[in-house]
Amino acid sequence: MATGYRTRKVGILGGGQLGRMLVQAGTDLNVQFKVLDPSPQAPCSSLVPDFHVGALTDYDTVLAFGKDCQVLTIEIENVNTDALKELARKGVKVFPQPEVIALIQDKRLQKQFYQQKGIPTASFVLTQNRQEVATQHAHRLPAVHKLGREGYDGRGVQVLRTAQDLPKAFDAPGVLEELVDFEKEIAIIVSRNEAGQVSAFPAVEMVFHPEANLVEFLLGPARLSEAIAQQAKNIAIEVIEALDMVGLLAVEMFITKQGQVLVNEVAPRPHNSGHHTIEASYTSQYHQHLRAIMGLPPGHTQSMVPAVMVNLLGAPGHSGPALYQGMEAVLVMPGTHVHLYGKAETRPFRKMGHVTLTGPNAETLLEKAQEVKQTLKVIA
Amino acid sequence: MATGYRTRKVGILGGGQLGRMLVQAGTDLNVQFKVLDPSPQAPCSSLVPDFHVGALTDYDTVLAFGKDCQVLTIEIENVNTDALKELARKGVKVFPQPEVIALIQDKRLQKQFYQQKGIPTASFVLTQNRQEVATQHAHRLPAVHKLGREGYDGRGVQVLRTAQDLPKAFDAPGVLEELVDFEKEIAIIVSRNEAGQVSAFPAVEMVFHPEANLVEFLLGPARLSEAIAQQAKNIAIEVIEALDMVGLLAVEMFITKQGQVLVNEVAPRPHNSGHHTIEASYTSQYHQHLRAIMGLPPGHTQSMVPAVMVNLLGAPGHSGPALYQGMEAVLVMPGTHVHLYGKAETRPFRKMGHVTLTGPNAETLLEKAQEVKQTLKVIA
Repeated sequence: MATGYRTRKVGILGGGQLGRMLVQAGTDLNVQFKVLDPSPQAPCSSLVPDFHVGALTDYDTVLAFGKDCQVLTIEIENVNTDALKELARKGVKVFPQPEVIALIQDKRLQKQFYQQKGIPTASFVLTQNRQEVATQHAHRLPAVHKLGREGYDGRGVQVLRTAQDLPKAFDAPGVLEELVDFEKEIAIIVSRNEAGQVSAFPAVEMVFHPEANLVEFLLGPARLSEAIAQQAKNIAIEVIEALDMVGLLAVEMFITKQGQVLVNEVAPRPHNSGHHTIEASYTSQYHQHLRAIMGLPPGHTQSMVPAVMVNLLGAPGHSGPALYQGMEAVLVMPGTHVHLYGKAETRPFRKMGHVTLTGPNAETLLEKAQEVKQTLKVIA
Repeated sequence: MATGYRTRKVGILGGGQLGRMLVQAGTDLNVQFKVLDPSPQAPCSSLVPDFHVGALTDYDTVLAFGKDCQVLTIEIENVNTDALKELARKGVKVFPQPEVIALIQDKRLQKQFYQQKGIPTASFVLTQNRQEVATQHAHRLPAVHKLGREGYDGRGVQVLRTAQDLPKAFDAPGVLEELVDFEKEIAIIVSRNEAGQVSAFPAVEMVFHPEANLVEFLLGPARLSEAIAQQAKNIAIEVIEALDMVGLLAVEMFITKQGQVLVNEVAPRPHNSGHHTIEASYTSQYHQHLRAIMGLPPGHTQSMVPAVMVNLLGAPGHSGPALYQGMEAVLVMPGTHVHLYGKAETRPFRKMGHVTLTGPNAETLLEKAQEVKQTLKVIA
């Protein structure tokens, strides 16, 4: 079958860095992009002539934006799924499907789904408000309280260690989860197309700061035993198949100290844990997402070389027009790949870019990642 | 020194595939691009909001286009260099420099330059017209006749084997070169920034069709002895330094059967022989070009894995809206990277895209390249 790729119009809800990297990749396949974002200065605005400003949560805006697309996708979950359902009814291929987005938007539904499908996940209880957590579930501490809806990028997650933390519980519908004492935190990105063809990238490992107990770097492929790696891969594929989803799904998992694999949460789109695939894998997560939603076969997911990814966050105490300090020192380090996200303004901890380090030796890369982190700063 | 990369406006004269891949790469560094091309449907038009339609050879058009750029570069040599000289006088950083472009635009000047600088090149004589070639230089056959100006992409080059070929000589100022009986044809891409920092990618080898005697694939790194590889690299660096050029320079060379390295010709911009660096090298030629012209240090030029590049040309006998036949079969082959150039119309032998194959073994890649060439066709 001969195809004129030029004619394929793909709409993206969200014009942030994930959309931007998706456009960079899709250009290789002549994909014609159209992007919607509430901000006129969004990262995609300088790259996509067919860029529209509007609210992703507004029914009419999303409906009007999507109706001339052949394929419609997302780079952020917080979108109007009713409008997407209507567009799907009208014949637009909406991938991931609106029902999947709606399920994932709500962490309560997401956890119940794992339970129903027998997918291993930390034990949990649904909660209605802060008072209920304090009065009925204090015996479950230490635990993690998650807001049901609208929790993104670390917002909407609160660790409750002792009764003293109970006032920090969310006063809205949420889910209270057992605090997993994990050995490692990993992510596996899987993809699935309409024909049901599934693929999985090798697991990526969150590398924690030894003292601060915060994720500092991502290392791909993860340092796992064959058995655990295979088990995690099977579970990630089980999740995308159980969701009957078309597109790319990042499955975040814990490996417990007992060697059990538990699903933490998922994101139905390109993900922070897959940035390194741009340079280090035979196929990047962005190409893989486009292949999945455009009805193309999945690409080869093997790594060419190990990689470490460093998020480039706005320096604490700096807000305003972004300046990059130490850039030249990082650009001369062999195997560094700098990705800036085109954001004019920096704010403390805002994701301003990332640096991928590639090279034959993972330990050396982790040392170099430290150096990158110490050297490159986004200030104002 | 802290830098706000967002504010750096880079103008590109030419909106073809080289400009398009330059924009894809430069997005990683927040470069703000502005593009000029005579065709409203040029490959960059769908990627660059600040896209302008106009003649690259028109003085006023180029002057008006370039005056608000910090840096101005080219992706095609056929541009108005007088306007570029004026812009350089006004303070725009024009890289490669207008004088270098003017020299390279004229193959007669280019050959004289090699001669003056003692750079090894095939022996030659300057010719004024067809009659002169026939009457005064017939004894030099077999030889290659090249048009002095406006010869691009194989046009403007004519092999004159015997006296019977003399009517094919160009009836305009040209250069008649000794026909080199070469063992291999290679290219080395070098770069140089304003501070004089120079870098060189490993040599790339043109792989010829065993019967048709036409370049079929490009293989990087080239299969060369250490000594020849070093000699070729030194010569390529000698050329960019002799030109005192800032930017990226592709130096095409012959390796003679006696092991001599001769410069054939150069291109002062990203080049067909460097496409594979996108996937296979630590730094791509496009990033390297931007580093050179933006005053940044050169990136690491080593290959991560061997690569073979297959040009995707419009099939003979097909003109019209482009269709891609066999795309899915190629997309499932491990290690294939398809790059389409966003050209709506195909014509016989038009460059419509390329496919890069990466993998650990060069011989296997060459076999796979054959398969790609047999499988993927651009028809209408």
